[in-house]
Amino acid sequence: MPDIRKLGEQGIIDLFKVSRAQPPITKSIGDDCAAIRLPGGKLLLWTTDMLIEGIHFERRFGTPKQLGAKSLAVNLSDIAAMGGRPIACLLALSLPHDLEQNWISEFRDGFTSLAERHGCPLIGGDTCGGREEIAISVTVLGEVPEDQVLWRSGAHDGDDIWVSGIPGTSALGLRILADGGDIISDEARIAVNKHLDPEPRLEPAEDLAESGQVTACIDTSDGIAVDLGHLCGESHLGALLEESLLPLPAIPPGREDDPLELALQGGEDYELLFTAAPAARVIFEKVRDLHRIGKMDESSNGVFMQRSDGGRERITPRGFSHF
Amino acid sequence: MPDIRKLGEQGIIDLFKVSRAQPPITKSIGDDCAAIRLPGGKLLLWTTDMLIEGIHFERRFGTPKQLGAKSLAVNLSDIAAMGGRPIACLLALSLPHDLEQNWISEFRDGFTSLAERHGCPLIGGDTCGGREEIAISVTVLGEVPEDQVLWRSGAHDGDDIWVSGIPGTSALGLRILADGGDIISDEARIAVNKHLDPEPRLEPAEDLAESGQVTACIDTSDGIAVDLGHLCGESHLGALLEESLLPLPAIPPGREDDPLELALQGGEDYELLFTAAPAARVIFEKVRDLHRIGKMDESSNGVFMQRSDGGRERITPRGFSHF
Repeated sequence: MPDIRKLGEQGIIDLFKVSRAQPPITKSIGDDCAAIRLPGGKLLLWTTDMLIEGIHFERRFGTPKQLGAKSLAVNLSDIAAMGGRPIACLLALSLPHDLEQNWISEFRDGFTSLAERHGCPLIGGDTCGGREEIAISVTVLGEVPEDQVLWRSGAHDGDDIWVSGIPGTSALGLRILADGGDIISDEARIAVNKHLDPEPRLEPAEDLAESGQVTACIDTSDGIAVDLGHLCGESHLGALLEESLLPLPAIPPGREDDPLELALQGGEDYELLFTAAPAARVIFEKVRDLHRIGKMDESSNGVFMQRSDGGRERITPRGFSHF
Repeated sequence: MPDIRKLGEQGIIDLFKVSRAQPPITKSIGDDCAAIRLPGGKLLLWTTDMLIEGIHFERRFGTPKQLGAKSLAVNLSDIAAMGGRPIACLLALSLPHDLEQNWISEFRDGFTSLAERHGCPLIGGDTCGGREEIAISVTVLGEVPEDQVLWRSGAHDGDDIWVSGIPGTSALGLRILADGGDIISDEARIAVNKHLDPEPRLEPAEDLAESGQVTACIDTSDGIAVDLGHLCGESHLGALLEESLLPLPAIPPGREDDPLELALQGGEDYELLFTAAPAARVIFEKVRDLHRIGKMDESSNGVFMQRSDGGRERITPRGFSHF
């Protein structure tokens, strides 16, 4: 009897695609959030993400406060990817019995400060105890004017591809933590902070949505190769990245990580990856921290990269897979 | 350093009660669902429940189909407790790598059949793999006309207390399963089915909400002692149960379980526990499967029971606690 590794994450998701989206459900499985039409021209956005100790995080790598904030941040990032604004959140926790009270208070502080900062009050949840590993499940509701929503599916042939931040930085940080490497250099500190304290790009995403220039958007949770692949799939187009344009994470002195590999395959940046017509360059080139990295291309079947040496290479997702 | 057992479930929940509910948030932590005001006189209801293997379920006790349905049912029960109707759901799953593909297909069948039956399409979620224990987190949105919503907080002194079904039946079923007892007798079959296949009381709850007679409502997930205690707390009243009125689960031949203990302390029935003025008896006495079991009483400080032998006893929650 085959086990679920044969299916992989996408295979499992496909198994559950049985309900057709009917009004008021506007978007079902297949985007950063589900979307439900509200009276008055708005869409209700809805997302959930689960963080399991030993899979998504190690307690020893960061503080409880960082983990609390990150467990909300990864969900807020899905709201950002739709151009939305959060409304409220719920938190479900499974905690080991011997967890210190301080741990949970600090986790709460991290969670609720980020929630407050983004106007996303914690209004309910569920809690249980007994297993050794912590399990955290968060769900967030948000909203966006229907005429501003950023789907994964709207990119056009020839659109520029943009990314915020430096892709691969979080994955570098995770490697440094996992290796027990020094966190003395600026490069190491930046990478580790990015991994432990991702900042959901809600305000920039709202600006993007309001600009009316963005044709498709996704957040970079699994790495550019995977996430751009999703955007391509939903937009029925290929993509051609340009190596010369791709910003690369700065590797701390003494380490030998491959910055290009990290930038293409590293997950958990929780930045914005989006597309826009070339006419919008004049706007986005002025925005701090936005990088144009390639273009959508209907003649490519998947994600490719134009190498600086002239060759063209297919980018196969090797991003983090749980299965 | 004290650990979280000292806090208990309520202590942990209280720790997270930091956000004040501000419009449009109508209800924050402290009811079966959070509630958000929508344009047009409706409330959006929102709930989440997490099921962890080894805490909430054992794989060997039931089929994957039953577990799929139950993981949604326990959430739908929270929507029912508010008098609401479900809109849609999300499902997050953490699965062991060696899980058989059949298992996940059957789980899906159970989940999605119940979802379809109650008009609650699965429209998104999250999936990961790697830990040995299955973790399931579901979140459901529902809606209810604001003038019909059933809070925990509306009971009046002298209101009758009603419960649907036979409290304690699910807990008896769990004991039979845990003991490896025979499931031959009707009594055993009924109890085990109730434990593995709880049916969320959505339609009866909608009828209750529409009747305009119900003053407060909660679902029985942790046992009457705990759940009635919550209703009392939110309504700032005590309660006096009458032993002679309390329906008791039928114990299978050869077993020696205490039916009264089960009825008061047994959790996971996912039935409705509600209050209504005595004038409403003429209505509710005609409804199949509803039982009047006592009355709200401002002179009692907590939950008490008038014993059949004339004595009066405080009912201390001994319902299932994770902490």
